[in-house]
Amino acid sequence: MTYYQEHHTDFLEGLKTFLRIPSISTLTEHKPDIRRAADFALNELRAAGMTVAELIEGAGNPLVYAEWLGAPGKPTILFYGHYDVQPPDPLDEWKSPPFEPEVRNDNIYARGAVDDKGQVYIQIKAVESLLKTTGRLPVNVKFLLEGEEETGGEFIEAYVKTKPPRLKADAAVVCDTEMFAPELPSICIGLRGLVYYELIVQGAEHDLHSGIYGGAAPNPMMAVAEIITALKDRDGHIKIPGFYDRVVPPSEKEREAWARLPFDEKEYTEKEMGARELVGEPGLSVFERTWARPTVEVHGIRGGFTGEGAKTVIPARAVAKISTRLVGDQRLDESIEQTRAAVKAACPKGVTAELKLISAGAPSLTNPDNPFIHAAAAALKETFGKDTVYIRSGGSIPIVGVFDKYLGIPSVMMGFGLPDDNLHAPNEKFHLPNFYRGIEAVARYLEILGE
Amino acid sequence: MTYYQEHHTDFLEGLKTFLRIPSISTLTEHKPDIRRAADFALNELRAAGMTVAELIEGAGNPLVYAEWLGAPGKPTILFYGHYDVQPPDPLDEWKSPPFEPEVRNDNIYARGAVDDKGQVYIQIKAVESLLKTTGRLPVNVKFLLEGEEETGGEFIEAYVKTKPPRLKADAAVVCDTEMFAPELPSICIGLRGLVYYELIVQGAEHDLHSGIYGGAAPNPMMAVAEIITALKDRDGHIKIPGFYDRVVPPSEKEREAWARLPFDEKEYTEKEMGARELVGEPGLSVFERTWARPTVEVHGIRGGFTGEGAKTVIPARAVAKISTRLVGDQRLDESIEQTRAAVKAACPKGVTAELKLISAGAPSLTNPDNPFIHAAAAALKETFGKDTVYIRSGGSIPIVGVFDKYLGIPSVMMGFGLPDDNLHAPNEKFHLPNFYRGIEAVARYLEILGE
Repeated sequence: MTYYQEHHTDFLEGLKTFLRIPSISTLTEHKPDIRRAADFALNELRAAGMTVAELIEGAGNPLVYAEWLGAPGKPTILFYGHYDVQPPDPLDEWKSPPFEPEVRNDNIYARGAVDDKGQVYIQIKAVESLLKTTGRLPVNVKFLLEGEEETGGEFIEAYVKTKPPRLKADAAVVCDTEMFAPELPSICIGLRGLVYYELIVQGAEHDLHSGIYGGAAPNPMMAVAEIITALKDRDGHIKIPGFYDRVVPPSEKEREAWARLPFDEKEYTEKEMGARELVGEPGLSVFERTWARPTVEVHGIRGGFTGEGAKTVIPARAVAKISTRLVGDQRLDESIEQTRAAVKAACPKGVTAELKLISAGAPSLTNPDNPFIHAAAAALKETFGKDTVYIRSGGSIPIVGVFDKYLGIPSVMMGFGLPDDNLHAPNEKFHLPNFYRGIEAVARYLEILGE
Repeated sequence: MTYYQEHHTDFLEGLKTFLRIPSISTLTEHKPDIRRAADFALNELRAAGMTVAELIEGAGNPLVYAEWLGAPGKPTILFYGHYDVQPPDPLDEWKSPPFEPEVRNDNIYARGAVDDKGQVYIQIKAVESLLKTTGRLPVNVKFLLEGEEETGGEFIEAYVKTKPPRLKADAAVVCDTEMFAPELPSICIGLRGLVYYELIVQGAEHDLHSGIYGGAAPNPMMAVAEIITALKDRDGHIKIPGFYDRVVPPSEKEREAWARLPFDEKEYTEKEMGARELVGEPGLSVFERTWARPTVEVHGIRGGFTGEGAKTVIPARAVAKISTRLVGDQRLDESIEQTRAAVKAACPKGVTAELKLISAGAPSLTNPDNPFIHAAAAALKETFGKDTVYIRSGGSIPIVGVFDKYLGIPSVMMGFGLPDDNLHAPNEKFHLPNFYRGIEAVARYLEILGE
């Protein structure tokens, strides 16, 4: 791996170039930057030595596809990542401009540093290092990078659902997660699903004066509160009938492993979250509550008067943003039906409640007793010099469920981010030692798989 | 009253001039219009023949004061009204421009037509008619008009609280309410009080990702829902301990009178309110629920994400606009304490809840067995040719409580608006026959009082 060691500076400069492109997928004025970022990744893959590298155009931002299939009889790995980024606001909280990458204390600061350009670049540079050193790869490799992960990833999902033959692979490698702690190599084997709704509650046809009509008029804002509190109790226990029926508790072995993770609850609560105390279902560990239990959250409620001072209005309508997180083996459609039924049952008189589906992504749970995961654990252990831990995430990466369902392949979630990398927030960063070790680990992973 | 009959056209033209001034008190750019409206009222009072007419300047929009005290030994009446108006938005729903008064089908359409310029003008023109006809008034008369009723009326309240000797009177006449139905002369004898709050719920210091932290993080939006539902149940019954303790039920006589009011519940529900069905405490009439029972309403909730699509945020903070309406004999301070205690008791773990007081106005209930009310009822009956009904309003006119508490005088609420006059809404109007009969009724009222 001399090539790898000799090109640290090039890798960093290349990453900086990638990070300078403001490929913000949620803002249409950045469409040209989206294309620049796709072209950049495409050219890097070509330069790395991939035999095919092309853009897949369609109803969305282009997908970047590449392949090197010169290892017949060996497994095929599909690398996934995304080249789009979140908007950088609030801008004034950044210590250096979000699209002018700056290295401070072994970290590179820029929007997209860890999510996900730095990790996409790890994959590309790992492949490049192997190809430039030996002229070949130990296994067959494909890339599928998308440009709208931050806006829902509809195009890639639609594309994968067509089961294109070129996506045939034995496993996917997703570098879009984080390590449990610095220096602790981690593989994420479980993700929660996410079903996002808009709850639309309509009372009278127009706003009413709360003095004249208060006491007789239906109040949609109150109705939203009634419905919300009917979905989850004060202790965080979900009240939707049947919601826990299919929830598979973590095994004793997994619970024990979680209990061994380095974790300071006080620091997590006060420093990481900035909270006074933790909440949630009594008697369950934080890991179980955030990784292995479903939740219901309300993200915001629109309607009525929220300005300065007082306005005595009974709003005609209130719209709440609500989501449920699901865990294995909950089923999307069933959970949606259950939630709809609970909303219907909880709807007070005088108003109508409509639960509009915004998006739905299934939970995923990979059995770690799987050669692709074992190889990843070994590669990480070699690179970081520590036993790899298996963790889960409370978040959702819908593509993992899509790969599982439509390509029938497991995803190996090897992430190199750190918990304090500020993803989606100002001063997003990527820890450079993790960047370099990531390249090494991914290359080593392919070598082990090829053995 | 020949003068009165001969000057219909002048009265209408004068009212139009008053209505053309966009004296919107909530928008600072209309400060010059506020002053123009105050000057207009001042000049009208002078021209009517009031012996004193001047502006009272201070920490707010000017008060217009006037007096005619040439009837020694006779009672003194204090006329109250306001010359400021609500903003006209949404502008595109007006059929004619809000500050270009237009007469259509016996109604004059303009912002402020009924609330309250039309009714202020009734008072002035009634006095003018008497003074121009007989050179004197049957009783002593004072005027106190304010220019910030629509923004809370702080200046007039502060002024009245100093108990200025010039405000000494036997009764106030407030023309800022409506008749129960067209052609049905009405006197409002009860108003609900209003206490308006901001409920500020704080969770973590910053927004949190609902995937990563959902299940362990406090959600202020959920907490607001918990608190709201702890204040009032699904049937509209207030759960704040002690809140009903001092509530005086309407007398059997009053209940019987309400039952005789012309009222079509279906039309009220569907046409007037645009609602599917009425809600509120079971077993009580609509009048009792809206006039004689306290309520809790939520007007809006701010915080988190309410835009298009999905954002998986657990907001750090949520702010709810909440109000309670009070009825006699509830006490302001006690109700505030009770509400604070209930919020505190309902606050879930992990968040703090602060209940910030925005405004507080006491309820008022006038005993109709009072010579000033009897005279008003007689004057209205003579003018409209029908028995006057005593009604209440669910709304709040704080100045009535202030007059009661600081000047020790009852308020006679003789209103000439109609339920469909669109106050605070587009196409506000005033029914011209009520405008003319209002002038006649107020003049007749002063004559009866002087007998």
